[in-house]
Amino acid sequence: MVRSSGVAVVGGGVIGLACAWRAAAAGFAVTVHDPAPGSGASWVAGGMLAPVTEALPGEDDVLALGVASLDRWPSFATELSAAGTDPGLRTEGTLAVAVDPADRAELDRLGEHLARLGRDVDVLRGRSLRLAEPSLGPAVRSALSVPGDLAVDNRALLAALLAACRSAGVAFEPSRCETLPPADVVVLAAGAHSGALHPALREMIRPVKGEILRLRARRGVLPPPSRTVRAVVGGRRCYLVPRDRARVVLGATQYEVGFDTDVTAGGVRQLLDDAERVLPAIGEYALEESSAGLRPGSPDNLPLIGSLEPGVLVATGHSRHGILLAPLTAEAVLALLRGGSVPPEAASAEVNRFAPAMGVSEGAPRRGNAVTHGRDERSEA
Amino acid sequence: MVRSSGVAVVGGGVIGLACAWRAAAAGFAVTVHDPAPGSGASWVAGGMLAPVTEALPGEDDVLALGVASLDRWPSFATELSAAGTDPGLRTEGTLAVAVDPADRAELDRLGEHLARLGRDVDVLRGRSLRLAEPSLGPAVRSALSVPGDLAVDNRALLAALLAACRSAGVAFEPSRCETLPPADVVVLAAGAHSGALHPALREMIRPVKGEILRLRARRGVLPPPSRTVRAVVGGRRCYLVPRDRARVVLGATQYEVGFDTDVTAGGVRQLLDDAERVLPAIGEYALEESSAGLRPGSPDNLPLIGSLEPGVLVATGHSRHGILLAPLTAEAVLALLRGGSVPPEAASAEVNRFAPAMGVSEGAPRRGNAVTHGRDERSEA
Repeated sequence: MVRSSGVAVVGGGVIGLACAWRAAAAGFAVTVHDPAPGSGASWVAGGMLAPVTEALPGEDDVLALGVASLDRWPSFATELSAAGTDPGLRTEGTLAVAVDPADRAELDRLGEHLARLGRDVDVLRGRSLRLAEPSLGPAVRSALSVPGDLAVDNRALLAALLAACRSAGVAFEPSRCETLPPADVVVLAAGAHSGALHPALREMIRPVKGEILRLRARRGVLPPPSRTVRAVVGGRRCYLVPRDRARVVLGATQYEVGFDTDVTAGGVRQLLDDAERVLPAIGEYALEESSAGLRPGSPDNLPLIGSLEPGVLVATGHSRHGILLAPLTAEAVLALLRGGSVPPEAASAEVNRFAPAMGVSEGAPRRGNAVTHGRDERSEA
Repeated sequence: MVRSSGVAVVGGGVIGLACAWRAAAAGFAVTVHDPAPGSGASWVAGGMLAPVTEALPGEDDVLALGVASLDRWPSFATELSAAGTDPGLRTEGTLAVAVDPADRAELDRLGEHLARLGRDVDVLRGRSLRLAEPSLGPAVRSALSVPGDLAVDNRALLAALLAACRSAGVAFEPSRCETLPPADVVVLAAGAHSGALHPALREMIRPVKGEILRLRARRGVLPPPSRTVRAVVGGRRCYLVPRDRARVVLGATQYEVGFDTDVTAGGVRQLLDDAERVLPAIGEYALEESSAGLRPGSPDNLPLIGSLEPGVLVATGHSRHGILLAPLTAEAVLALLRGGSVPPEAASAEVNRFAPAMGVSEGAPRRGNAVTHGRDERSEA
């Protein structure tokens, strides 16, 4: 086996690690550059795989991309379990709920929007909702149930990806890149920090701070819901993602304040206030952790996946959806490394869709940046 | 110099360390037994030295004891700086404030109570209050100013005591005592855990959980007050103790729930809600830490200082006031080790005041448990 093609993945978050694993398993010689692989925004995330309940009118491409990646999640998790460790996929589904009358109107609009898109959505009310999720408070009168919207334990996922990368022979360079490292091909997957690493990304990727809390039901207190709960509370959104029988991740605030990862007192209070409307027992939960991460925001909430210039691929700008979009992104990046095209479902994430703004001629989008030398054909079986 | 008298101090919190330092400096051979000296409730504390603003009608003995120890604090801090490191005494004083009309009535009662006791209390209002502390919110219309109520950086204090103990030759045994260790004299200073170590304390000392938050003013946000602020908000008490130009400790909840040090979501929310009424900028502060500790509660909020039986002294049950009372407690324990009596100001803390309940004959309170052999007279100069 000859491994002469060097792929440098810049960024060891969920996107970089998923790309590195898939590329190394396909025979590329991969090095991940990250001072602390498996940390950053991926570590702070809630782990929702919930494109349908997160759908916003006007963002149908985001929904379609998310659904396409969600379709890949079960096999991705199975392969990852075999190659690394169990990433903790949860298949209990998701509820979308609302609290105030205005919030309920927004939930109704989501239901109508999803119906127009032909998506199956059940409505749970009253006694059937209480029976399904006894921990929901009286302000929650109905819920949209979306069984296909899943969740994953983001930290178990990162551990699984790190293990799978190591098994596949990925090398780790534990330093922070100030410029792109020398390599046959670079995969720029540095999340919110990507803008500093390539001029074409400077105006495209911005940090969007999010704060989350991790809580644990104490003895004698009602345990968290079995499903993910996405709520609209007083016009704000929050989510509760169960982790095990007792633990739950509560997120997430959203601020655009630069590269700041302070957890603010106001953010914590708002999350707790809102969550208690949904899950009254939460005041009795233990607050185990509060953290903040920086999502890589893009102009249209779709990621940027493709070739920036010969030898430089990019996979960033995943906004709130990095974990959901990891399987499809890694598949697209592997296709590009092999000289092919991205899967058609990922076309909306084409990096050159903002071409004039990026100083690239619109007539010549560069796709399918070929890196074929040294590929280990045996590992593709 | 002969050191044959072994003193075992059980508990390396502020009380145990202060006793150990004073005893070792006086020539006793001292060993502190604690799995993690300088942690526990003393580590979590706010560090208020504020007996006057904390005074409660009906607890005049608590006030008198606190004032007697506060009088000793400046020289205690000076000696500790010389013997160890700077404990971070803050002499800016304390404000007592109120938010709602009912809270203001309580503040007025405190003012009247202190006036009856002959304590000088200034009232700050309106513009003079704003000028003194611009960060206080509009709900705070007046304040009782008590310049003599101080504060100390509890963590700097613990570091200073540990350094002073080491300089004075105190030995540390890093294990948890299940029973009293063999020694010529034991000083039982195990805080909330004291009840498990002597039958006479079992019904006397109970854990009273307190949660605190540590916050930091972010750039562009109004810094915390320069003085300690004690507030009554909606009938609840909270305090804000400044640490440096940007940091502040916010405390403290109070629960009696056994040996539980979970930080609860409800406790955090309540502290933040209340603090924001007092200091509106706090929502923009970074939440750096949330922690819980166990105060050693006593039946009357006074500590238990004295001799439990021959060879067993006790210094525990300091409730919310361990840091304030450390200088006087250490002085009393040293006097007992030397075979003398506690200072008269500490008489109200006499351990046998609950004698019938403790199974000790009321007529024979044991005081002045003498331990004179091996004392190094030279170090008393």
